[in-house]
Amino acid sequence: MIYYITGGERSGKSSYAQNLALSHSNTPKYIATSRVWDADHRKRIDRHIADRDDRWTSVEEEKNIVSVIETNDVVVIDCVTLWLTNFYVDTKNNVNKSLELAKIEFNKLLNLEATIIIISNEIGMGVHAQTEIGRKFTELQGWMNQHIAKHADKATMMVSGIPLTLK
Amino acid sequence: MIYYITGGERSGKSSYAQNLALSHSNTPKYIATSRVWDADHRKRIDRHIADRDDRWTSVEEEKNIVSVIETNDVVVIDCVTLWLTNFYVDTKNNVNKSLELAKIEFNKLLNLEATIIIISNEIGMGVHAQTEIGRKFTELQGWMNQHIAKHADKATMMVSGIPLTLK
Amino acid sequence: MIYYITGGERSGKSSYAQNLALSHSNTPKYIATSRVWDADHRKRIDRHIADRDDRWTSVEEEKNIVSVIETNDVVVIDCVTLWLTNFYVDTKNNVNKSLELAKIEFNKLLNLEATIIIISNEIGMGVHAQTEIGRKFTELQGWMNQHIAKHADKATMMVSGIPLTLK
Repeated sequence: MIYYITGGERSGKSSYAQNLALSHSNTPKYIATSRVWDADHRKRIDRHIADRDDRWTSVEEEKNIVSVIETNDVVVIDCVTLWLTNFYVDTKNNVNKSLELAKIEFNKLLNLEATIIIISNEIGMGVHAQTEIGRKFTELQGWMNQHIAKHADKATMMVSGIPLTLK
Repeated sequence: MIYYITGGERSGKSSYAQNLALSHSNTPKYIATSRVWDADHRKRIDRHIADRDDRWTSVEEEKNIVSVIETNDVVVIDCVTLWLTNFYVDTKNNVNKSLELAKIEFNKLLNLEATIIIISNEIGMGVHAQTEIGRKFTELQGWMNQHIAKHADKATMMVSGIPLTLK
Repeated sequence: MIYYITGGERSGKSSYAQNLALSHSNTPKYIATSRVWDADHRKRIDRHIADRDDRWTSVEEEKNIVSVIETNDVVVIDCVTLWLTNFYVDTKNNVNKSLELAKIEFNKLLNLEATIIIISNEIGMGVHAQTEIGRKFTELQGWMNQHIAKHADKATMMVSGIPLTLK
């Protein structure tokens, strides 16, 4: 079962995802996809981990998400944007290659016996990014969002903390 | 009764809010939250006031909204973004302090016998702001939107002039 | 019959519009509104034309859309943003004049016996544009979107490839 949750910044995606996970399990897993860029970033991540109560197991995985999910797990993946950023950086901002690699990793989730709640972001409803790298990333994000939402069993957009059912 | 209306720029929020107010009262009140920055801005605000017909009473209040609402009033508050900006500027861009102060003011509205229509903005569905101050304000806006929407009786997102019911 | 389709970048608007057109006709028409800015742009447009299969007739028209639509045509107009840009550039960034001219052209579509699928963009849900020209264009886009959506028989917002019915 795959749940796709998207929305703008601070729209309540993470709270909604965590509550959804806790409604399925008392021992959910939190998969953070952020690469650790520096010591400050490391501290911020550790603070996020400490914020979640001890029902949660926290895992960090930059790309190969399937490797940290076991049968019958209930997991929150946070988030597609940071995960895609890792592919984008490592391919030197190659959109096609990043999209291909990310789809390969995502598709491995489709055969799992697990409850997967995947958080993404809407970043394409404002004016164009100032930089070419930013504009191309916006396209990458949009295409990957379409791919994930298409394969998800349920899709939700958060607006001001309220869930809007997409499917 | 609190109505929360959000949406993008020029998505028809204000027209929708005004029509909603007029469906409740022939003598609604318009509360503009914008700080007056200079003479040009003053002129623009006066033009907006002149644009509304004489059924409307126009009031300006930068922060303490409850002070200009009386029992049984039907009011449009325009808007959360400008109102939050005043807290943000006065706290020297302190997100936590601004959020705390804004929540205190907003919560005073919850006990009123009045029809309150509060307009906000979706600003977090594009790429990140260029500046740290802008990025932090986007977070402040998102958190306050969640707080208001949670306490509103009805919530609506405007898209291209069409109301989409959130709750 | 007018269908209005809006959404963010890479949200699946174009695919959805094309599938909708093909559900109405085996010989739909594609109206590209982009001005050709240079040789690179010309190549990109030609690639888009080649991407569509031979059921499609491709037409380019910068402003006067009605001139390329015939009775009983099934057309996709792609897109309002690029079309508005042409008015905006030619009026030296005059929002009011652009809006007036664009409405005159759009209103000519209202009396046609044709199936018109018109694609636009949501660009006002992020932070403000960096430039005055960009901010004014965002307003122009918002106002025109409202006008088109109001006159459309059906309106849809695409989110992550999933259609959300506006009306």
